[in-house]
Amino acid sequence: MAWLRPAWPRGAPLRWRPCGPAWARRAPEPRKAPGAAPRAAAGPWPPQGGRGLRTASPGLGEVPLTSERYRVRRLPFSRLSPRDVAFFERLMPGRAVTDPEELEPFNVDWLKSVRGCSKLLLKPQTAAEVSQVLRYCSERNLAVNPQGGNTGLVGGSVPVFDEIILSTVLMSRIISFDTVSGILVCQAGCILEKLSEYLEEQGFIMPLDLGAKGSCHIGGNVATNAGGLRLLRYGSLRGTVLGLEVVLADGTVLDCLASLRKDNTGYDLKQLFIGSEGTLGVITAVSILCPQKPKAVNLAFLGCQNFSQVLETFTTCRAMLGEILSAYEFMDEKCMELVEKHLKLSCPVRDSHFYVLIETSGSNSTHDEEKLNSFLEQAMTSGLVTDGTVATDDKKIKMLWSLRERITEALTHDGCVYKYDISLPVGKLYDLVTDMRARLGQSAKNVVGYGHLGDGNLHLNITAESYSHSLLDAIEPFVYEWTARYNGSISAEHGLGFKKKQFIQYSKPSEAVFLMQRFKAMLDPKGILNPYKTLPSSS
Amino acid sequence: MAWLRPAWPRGAPLRWRPCGPAWARRAPEPRKAPGAAPRAAAGPWPPQGGRGLRTASPGLGEVPLTSERYRVRRLPFSRLSPRDVAFFERLMPGRAVTDPEELEPFNVDWLKSVRGCSKLLLKPQTAAEVSQVLRYCSERNLAVNPQGGNTGLVGGSVPVFDEIILSTVLMSRIISFDTVSGILVCQAGCILEKLSEYLEEQGFIMPLDLGAKGSCHIGGNVATNAGGLRLLRYGSLRGTVLGLEVVLADGTVLDCLASLRKDNTGYDLKQLFIGSEGTLGVITAVSILCPQKPKAVNLAFLGCQNFSQVLETFTTCRAMLGEILSAYEFMDEKCMELVEKHLKLSCPVRDSHFYVLIETSGSNSTHDEEKLNSFLEQAMTSGLVTDGTVATDDKKIKMLWSLRERITEALTHDGCVYKYDISLPVGKLYDLVTDMRARLGQSAKNVVGYGHLGDGNLHLNITAESYSHSLLDAIEPFVYEWTARYNGSISAEHGLGFKKKQFIQYSKPSEAVFLMQRFKAMLDPKGILNPYKTLPSSS
Repeated sequence: MAWLRPAWPRGAPLRWRPCGPAWARRAPEPRKAPGAAPRAAAGPWPPQGGRGLRTASPGLGEVPLTSERYRVRRLPFSRLSPRDVAFFERLMPGRAVTDPEELEPFNVDWLKSVRGCSKLLLKPQTAAEVSQVLRYCSERNLAVNPQGGNTGLVGGSVPVFDEIILSTVLMSRIISFDTVSGILVCQAGCILEKLSEYLEEQGFIMPLDLGAKGSCHIGGNVATNAGGLRLLRYGSLRGTVLGLEVVLADGTVLDCLASLRKDNTGYDLKQLFIGSEGTLGVITAVSILCPQKPKAVNLAFLGCQNFSQVLETFTTCRAMLGEILSAYEFMDEKCMELVEKHLKLSCPVRDSHFYVLIETSGSNSTHDEEKLNSFLEQAMTSGLVTDGTVATDDKKIKMLWSLRERITEALTHDGCVYKYDISLPVGKLYDLVTDMRARLGQSAKNVVGYGHLGDGNLHLNITAESYSHSLLDAIEPFVYEWTARYNGSISAEHGLGFKKKQFIQYSKPSEAVFLMQRFKAMLDPKGILNPYKTLPSSS
Repeated sequence: MAWLRPAWPRGAPLRWRPCGPAWARRAPEPRKAPGAAPRAAAGPWPPQGGRGLRTASPGLGEVPLTSERYRVRRLPFSRLSPRDVAFFERLMPGRAVTDPEELEPFNVDWLKSVRGCSKLLLKPQTAAEVSQVLRYCSERNLAVNPQGGNTGLVGGSVPVFDEIILSTVLMSRIISFDTVSGILVCQAGCILEKLSEYLEEQGFIMPLDLGAKGSCHIGGNVATNAGGLRLLRYGSLRGTVLGLEVVLADGTVLDCLASLRKDNTGYDLKQLFIGSEGTLGVITAVSILCPQKPKAVNLAFLGCQNFSQVLETFTTCRAMLGEILSAYEFMDEKCMELVEKHLKLSCPVRDSHFYVLIETSGSNSTHDEEKLNSFLEQAMTSGLVTDGTVATDDKKIKMLWSLRERITEALTHDGCVYKYDISLPVGKLYDLVTDMRARLGQSAKNVVGYGHLGDGNLHLNITAESYSHSLLDAIEPFVYEWTARYNGSISAEHGLGFKKKQFIQYSKPSEAVFLMQRFKAMLDPKGILNPYKTLPSSS
């Protein structure tokens, strides 16, 4: 079902202030730091067709070094010495890479927005090797950047300075799959799509699916608590991940790789590593509960006249489709205009202010179609929906999905894009778009909203002819303050990584941030694991 | 649907050794400590009809004091002084209880197996009050026993010595419910059944359901990561709990009461408190995602000739019933014999070695019945199932559920019961029963197995005419070693509390236990929160 997948949403325009001592434990300030305007926001962004990051790309060397672009100070970690390199070469012959050309794609993120200058890439094959690496690095005070498929969108997966890159690329072994329980155990470096293919042959699917599935590693998915397209139906990784094997900063191997749906013996340690973006430990293996592969998939693409109708259509379809509802996405008419204008796609539903994409997945196609038809009749009769089309064949389903999934691409053709990935109470979701549109007036070219309505996840995007510092100041911190006012999240699914860590206070109270910093200090007292990421610096 | 609910499984026979310094960080030893044979295991156990714990019960005073029954040493907490009592009376007039009679039911667990001797019961109404209590107790080094509905089965919910009881009984306010998102926010003291009733009026249900629903508090459910009857369908609380408000040992209020399905801003602190049994903080409010109320419920009660068929029936029905499967319970023929013999219930399915109860819940009764019928036809035709009956009306559904839910009751009529609540890889689930039966031979009266097969959760029960030390030695540590050999959990859903904390090493490696102890020490340096529970003592 790869054709069903929307391209992932991309990160916000780069904008940054130094994260020196003053940042720690302080409420966010108005974003007025001078000279912080990023170059990357000045053109169409992000680059197209970036899935092939591992292939030679002529542009990588042109990405500015993070240490030069951002005012960030290197922490006093040791510098890599020839003796260190010799140690790692002995530990993993042929898998300790120092060749600059081979290192380059591991130093640059998928968006080509941040670049580190690591001199060493390690490719362990086992948790024991990861343990030896971290024990050594801990003793030597060498910083480490754990890396999965390097598909993150917030600069969390590449070094900021010269951290050693610890890649899971060679940890791609499937350890076991139990066809009775549906529990998969595998190493962290397994590519999500490979796991999906493996499971589909046995009548199962992964409980998560992402645009980046072709490159992302399951370990990285877990480390970033990836959301994606199946969350509405199968829930978050917090529920589906049953066990983890994690190596701590000091090299301790924490074996919590249980394959049990129920286990109430002590604290659930693995949860702390889910979503910690490699800052608390390196995930080396994952145990995950996988659902049955659905036998039938249907799609409905509908038009609504206002956002209230979008919401009411959601409650109606959730009630009538019940257990077979697997996606509820929405987009506004501006999105549709851009998709039609820039990509020449044609929408079979017209003249609506909002569009809704509903997917069902079930075990009986006849039943599913009956349910969908009853819902559609109700939605049409009651005037919730003014127009719509339904697809049951693969080709039309794919075509309809592309209207939603190619919005990101269409936006990049519209000029400079300011992107935000926000969670809000579902009833408030579109108010942010409306308020932003009113606020920016003519200074923005387009203000559009779309996203996973079923998950309360809005992708707010603002376009302009070119990058403008004043426009960014009009957007931020307004967008974060607005989100905070309604107890939303300033990062719904992308994490904080390097780019958003200083905004955490908009979504978490200072007591929580302080406690996170204490956990970090306890588990990684030297701070060697993925430094400069996730949390505001505590020094 | 209260009539659908099986009574919960009860805890294991009491058996205990002192948890002095030697226990910390050591692998479990053979259980040979002299003089540890408990009196409570010497008769039918647990007591019947215990739901009315709050009503005056003549038997409470007869329950031996935990401090006398078990060789456990009081830690050097301060003793409650008149000045302390005066402080609390000022803080919450009329809600600081010192009357021994009023205190008694709060000092004894529902099973009447453990009893503390607390002299003070506090009934805060707000998180601010809980904060003031804990700040004071922290400063004064007074131990605190957080208590919800006091329905726990492992002695975690009552004091061991004279800990102050901090009850959530007056924190029963529903804060909000969003009918679009299905997200409920409420105080920790809300009774599960009350929440269910509130939600059902609005077309929703709680994502968990338990036999103890009439008394248990949602805060206690979350603190113990309660499993229950809907886990197969709606997943664990780790996925459905979206936010928590928690008061830490030093009185800090940690407001992580988000109502968002997606939030990746920093570490997910709330997870640490889910299942921590009140040892890391006091949960004062909960935000939880609630599913739609199903419109149709069906039940099938089937007979299989061997456990392989039980497993294959599970995989078949999971494939054919797919999204509507909501329960898959199994019991062996010995269970059925006991239910028929002791309770005079009559089973409409006969002469099978195993029985299976399958429940469906869906949004369309016609579709659900069609799916169920197709599955049954397949199961019968292929010989997986030899006999069976189906119920769609409430009365028959209730009758069939009672065959499963009253096993616990039937067992108590069979003599002294040794009870174990085990998680195992589903394929291994019944081997433990078979091996135990072979091992015990004539020394046991009956060895039976039943449970939530869909969750990999086995309830292993052994009955004998009377309590026997040698029989217990034949069962333990064999049962724990067997479970550990297959990476199972020695406590699937009950937690460790006071009674099982010393067995944690059978399910968790020493590195994990050590890390848990560090979390405890960090969050509660004086150890005042629910002492003597969950973790082996670290001193």
